[in-house]
Amino acid sequence: MKVAVVGASGYTGLELLRILLRHPEFEVAAVTSEQRAGRSVGEVFPALRGRLDLVFEAVDPAALAGRVELAFTALPHAASARAVTALREAGVRVVDLSADFRLHSRDTYETWYGPHAAPERLGEAVYGLPELHREALRGASLIAAPGCYPTSALLPLAPLLRAGLVETRGIHVDSKSGVSGAGRTLADGYLFAELDGNCHAYKPGYAHRHAPEIEQEASEVAGSEVRVTFVPHLLPTTRGIATSVYVRPRTGDVEAARRALASAYAGEPFVRVLPEGETPTLQAVRGSNFCDVALFADARNDTWILLSTLDNLCKGASGQAVQCANLACALPETAGLLDTSCLP
Amino acid sequence: MKVAVVGASGYTGLELLRILLRHPEFEVAAVTSEQRAGRSVGEVFPALRGRLDLVFEAVDPAALAGRVELAFTALPHAASARAVTALREAGVRVVDLSADFRLHSRDTYETWYGPHAAPERLGEAVYGLPELHREALRGASLIAAPGCYPTSALLPLAPLLRAGLVETRGIHVDSKSGVSGAGRTLADGYLFAELDGNCHAYKPGYAHRHAPEIEQEASEVAGSEVRVTFVPHLLPTTRGIATSVYVRPRTGDVEAARRALASAYAGEPFVRVLPEGETPTLQAVRGSNFCDVALFADARNDTWILLSTLDNLCKGASGQAVQCANLACALPETAGLLDTSCLP
Amino acid sequence: MKVAVVGASGYTGLELLRILLRHPEFEVAAVTSEQRAGRSVGEVFPALRGRLDLVFEAVDPAALAGRVELAFTALPHAASARAVTALREAGVRVVDLSADFRLHSRDTYETWYGPHAAPERLGEAVYGLPELHREALRGASLIAAPGCYPTSALLPLAPLLRAGLVETRGIHVDSKSGVSGAGRTLADGYLFAELDGNCHAYKPGYAHRHAPEIEQEASEVAGSEVRVTFVPHLLPTTRGIATSVYVRPRTGDVEAARRALASAYAGEPFVRVLPEGETPTLQAVRGSNFCDVALFADARNDTWILLSTLDNLCKGASGQAVQCANLACALPETAGLLDTSCLP
Amino acid sequence: MKVAVVGASGYTGLELLRILLRHPEFEVAAVTSEQRAGRSVGEVFPALRGRLDLVFEAVDPAALAGRVELAFTALPHAASARAVTALREAGVRVVDLSADFRLHSRDTYETWYGPHAAPERLGEAVYGLPELHREALRGASLIAAPGCYPTSALLPLAPLLRAGLVETRGIHVDSKSGVSGAGRTLADGYLFAELDGNCHAYKPGYAHRHAPEIEQEASEVAGSEVRVTFVPHLLPTTRGIATSVYVRPRTGDVEAARRALASAYAGEPFVRVLPEGETPTLQAVRGSNFCDVALFADARNDTWILLSTLDNLCKGASGQAVQCANLACALPETAGLLDTSCLP
Repeated sequence: MKVAVVGASGYTGLELLRILLRHPEFEVAAVTSEQRAGRSVGEVFPALRGRLDLVFEAVDPAALAGRVELAFTALPHAASARAVTALREAGVRVVDLSADFRLHSRDTYETWYGPHAAPERLGEAVYGLPELHREALRGASLIAAPGCYPTSALLPLAPLLRAGLVETRGIHVDSKSGVSGAGRTLADGYLFAELDGNCHAYKPGYAHRHAPEIEQEASEVAGSEVRVTFVPHLLPTTRGIATSVYVRPRTGDVEAARRALASAYAGEPFVRVLPEGETPTLQAVRGSNFCDVALFADARNDTWILLSTLDNLCKGASGQAVQCANLACALPETAGLLDTSCLP
Repeated sequence: MKVAVVGASGYTGLELLRILLRHPEFEVAAVTSEQRAGRSVGEVFPALRGRLDLVFEAVDPAALAGRVELAFTALPHAASARAVTALREAGVRVVDLSADFRLHSRDTYETWYGPHAAPERLGEAVYGLPELHREALRGASLIAAPGCYPTSALLPLAPLLRAGLVETRGIHVDSKSGVSGAGRTLADGYLFAELDGNCHAYKPGYAHRHAPEIEQEASEVAGSEVRVTFVPHLLPTTRGIATSVYVRPRTGDVEAARRALASAYAGEPFVRVLPEGETPTLQAVRGSNFCDVALFADARNDTWILLSTLDNLCKGASGQAVQCANLACALPETAGLLDTSCLP
Repeated sequence: MKVAVVGASGYTGLELLRILLRHPEFEVAAVTSEQRAGRSVGEVFPALRGRLDLVFEAVDPAALAGRVELAFTALPHAASARAVTALREAGVRVVDLSADFRLHSRDTYETWYGPHAAPERLGEAVYGLPELHREALRGASLIAAPGCYPTSALLPLAPLLRAGLVETRGIHVDSKSGVSGAGRTLADGYLFAELDGNCHAYKPGYAHRHAPEIEQEASEVAGSEVRVTFVPHLLPTTRGIATSVYVRPRTGDVEAARRALASAYAGEPFVRVLPEGETPTLQAVRGSNFCDVALFADARNDTWILLSTLDNLCKGASGQAVQCANLACALPETAGLLDTSCLP
Repeated sequence: MKVAVVGASGYTGLELLRILLRHPEFEVAAVTSEQRAGRSVGEVFPALRGRLDLVFEAVDPAALAGRVELAFTALPHAASARAVTALREAGVRVVDLSADFRLHSRDTYETWYGPHAAPERLGEAVYGLPELHREALRGASLIAAPGCYPTSALLPLAPLLRAGLVETRGIHVDSKSGVSGAGRTLADGYLFAELDGNCHAYKPGYAHRHAPEIEQEASEVAGSEVRVTFVPHLLPTTRGIATSVYVRPRTGDVEAARRALASAYAGEPFVRVLPEGETPTLQAVRGSNFCDVALFADARNDTWILLSTLDNLCKGASGQAVQCANLACALPETAGLLDTSCLP
């Protein structure tokens, strides 16, 4: 099946190419980039020299329609909504990696991102977290791949909220992310000399755009309004997110929580619940589509701690997008994704 | 004034030497190391070649007595208590960087560290956090330099606890530390190839030895029992601790909290309360004795966030030890410490 | 075809597992480790949890004989020769990643490594650099996978030596390697805090064990004795080798050198000669089996510069071992190896 | 003595401030920056908050004249020459950290940098390498602080060239530099995600602007034309340069070379010749004004190897500029510079 990667010259685009090159069913037939149009993939990404013999095209959704059945869109928000609209009108199935179709509420979207370019399609989009929405993803025509931070917070948290084991208020999400989450942004703060050996929080509280996305999905799974305080940090590394979620239990029965996690993920191919006492690491998930989760309790202080790690570019973006595309196209869910991280 | 560094071949010992070499009053007259006895400082630490012309001696507290007035002890716990006892008996003033004299309760110490080698001196020791115990430190003969994590948690937290502005239960302390905090431990987990690009929590909940230390000091300043859940993480960097503390306010008046922080640290030489909206970074404190703190509020979720950064080897260990020694010896508190971090 | 990885708990062993897990023909049927015998792969390598359901066995070559047709041995030298002997006697084909069978001369081996445990097999072994010895590798029963540094020096250098375009004396090889090349050695010098932000040469001149290996193969291809001065450096990174080779041209015709490189590697699947003016990077080869090479000239100073990069664990060790195994077993040479590096 | 730092918002400017803050004689009275004019130093550099209470001014050399006796100029080339001219005309002594006054030949300068803005002052400038030009630096009014790479190559090389012990042609200089050498350049290639775990050569041969600077000084000390092939590399670290220089000896007497190095640097405060067999490291010089050098020989291959390390921002730029200023102002040469590197 021929697919396009629209906006292929950023980091999530590159990660899509890396994964799709070993996918047994999807064949990359077109790659687009405004900035790099006319240049070969190998010239722009020396790592892909000899592996993918394509030239970047300018984005032209109509022209893609006859050539591919499915497109991954990895454009900035707003630009993405416009491209998605054109692709959908031309009958192309879309997995969108931008934020444009993640929030169900147009008001919430516009509060955080500005005017929505295609609000009429909000109802069509499925939130692409297979562990929460697998059935809706089968055959879906428009999928909104989740944000990297929300994936890392929701996977450990959802089973406990669904089972009603924890309070829905006073949740604290402390996340640490590699720098690739910011894409190729050219700003002082992303220079090597500024980040090497550095670490700092940014947009703490309820100020980062991923906060309402976490609350939307957490509230849906809990069946009532969930409130999270979210503090993201930048790590001096390229890939990976480590998240700690602090929740207040409604019960002293931590074993019930362990059972909820275990049963939620027993059959999941990409979520690993670690043995008791083991903490997840970035290294164990780097380059892979796995999310590792663990639970610890501090009964003295009425607190449970949920820990998770994932690769922000893979399970947090492009890997998850391919997982969703597999579901949408009735392929094996793990196709192209059973890769082990590159270690050490 | 002649001083000794006992246990000078580890990272806190080396940092002590770095600071003392530019101190206007203290002169390093002796350095000890069991493992490196007989070797010159320049041979063991090429960076100090041409700067400090001493040979490591085996530890012999009695022999030091006539040669120095003050000793910094940077030995493992238990070994430290024995050396401290001998030094004190010989009349040498001591700043101890181990954990042996930080906890007032012998029971608590023995729960976390095993039998105490010198419990009779617990009452003599002053906890070396000048911002909390300055008066007691003046002229003190035995000072217990605080742990790195406790310093990073207590400095932002203490003013709010003292003013009664926050709940004393349900406090969550999420810390991220550079690897030098583990010293020169030879273990798989501290190899470059294991930590490069990695990040993970360890001993989460109430399992790390610094947790009871945080609670002791926080409870003392609050005037009632404080409970903290503490989750330390290893960062892929060498120096620095970034800590996020999540607390529940007793009041909606976040300005009262800002005032409490500002007035607590208005005259402090080494604590900088950042302007509203700015987050502390490791880079701004690396190599310096500063601790930067900031406050953010998420009123929607009944949560205040306290952020701090410091250099674990400097304000978190050796810099603070020198600050305490200055106080103990009636020197200017900032002597030898007004150094700017090495940036970028 | 069932294969074993003997000595699977080090970094080259782990990299073998990563590659073999996606290999279309080889199936890992046994993994051995003295230190980790009895523990599951997932417990030792959390990244492999859910991917490889095996338990580490103690090394017992005889017991492997009936279970596998081919073994990759990744043991320390000397230990490797003993295991190889037993495996070969039991009829198992072997790709050995140690240094034991790389040097043809027993004398040279013993000068650099000490007594050889199986000198009678030196004649059987084929040096596993497919670009130089492809025909001998087809069907080979004992293959010595080359050292990482020699691979990085020989691939750019061999075509020019073979064509007689450069002097065979006065060659300078300046290599920079990630730390994983040292394996999991527990020594001060490999701790994160010692290597972070550090870089230094070690064993410069003709003191590193890879120097005689480079000279053996370079001399063979040149048809006369080649002399290289070799200066390896440690980089503050985990994976990858960047090598600069300085040679004196015998001709002013740099285009002849470009043609020699281009024609040597025109049909090679894993060597990419970069377009003129482009320099190779570690990032473009990390996690892949590619070696990128480039040529520059400084005619003013009678010098040509050959640059190369490769991943020391992949093309420099385990990937090349699998490439050789593919040749030995008459499989497509690229089977399991056409993987793109994990970027950024 | 009041001094100004003109162009203080880059990395060499910041390093000047770090050093000058602890200088016993120089007081920073003015800091300029076009981009940051009107903002406080603490706002731009949070590390300096509480340490330097100044506001960045726009560059106005005339206005500085009455306020300072000496200026350090850390502007881009060409802009620097114009500021230097104005400052000199106003009677201010200048240490210039740009390339504008390093090359004696206007032609050579214009070949590499474009039109020179103040060629009439080329004769006035002294090349600021105290180990080569100490006497000329005493009382100098215009000093050109050397490039970082030239300092790292010239310090090990000069004594051997001066003594006529090595060939003046066929010299190969292989340098590895931290990223801060590029300053705060906003380009894709300097982003963290592009450099983390990466390493690559750039401008190899005789293509980097520091190549003619090395040749100028090396030729002067040798008394005849010297030719070097220069291959700089970027390291995945922030600070430091490690350089390997390959030379052909004119004699088999390596002890003569050791004596030449030892006697050249016996009295030098900032050059340390390492004991035989020890290699210099970045870590030993990071944050300090030291340059460590070592000599190795490969007699088999008619090659000597000179190794050096220094901190590119300190001995390679700002530290050396202060060392020169000390000489120019008849202060102790080491004033403000006897600092130990910040380790680990």
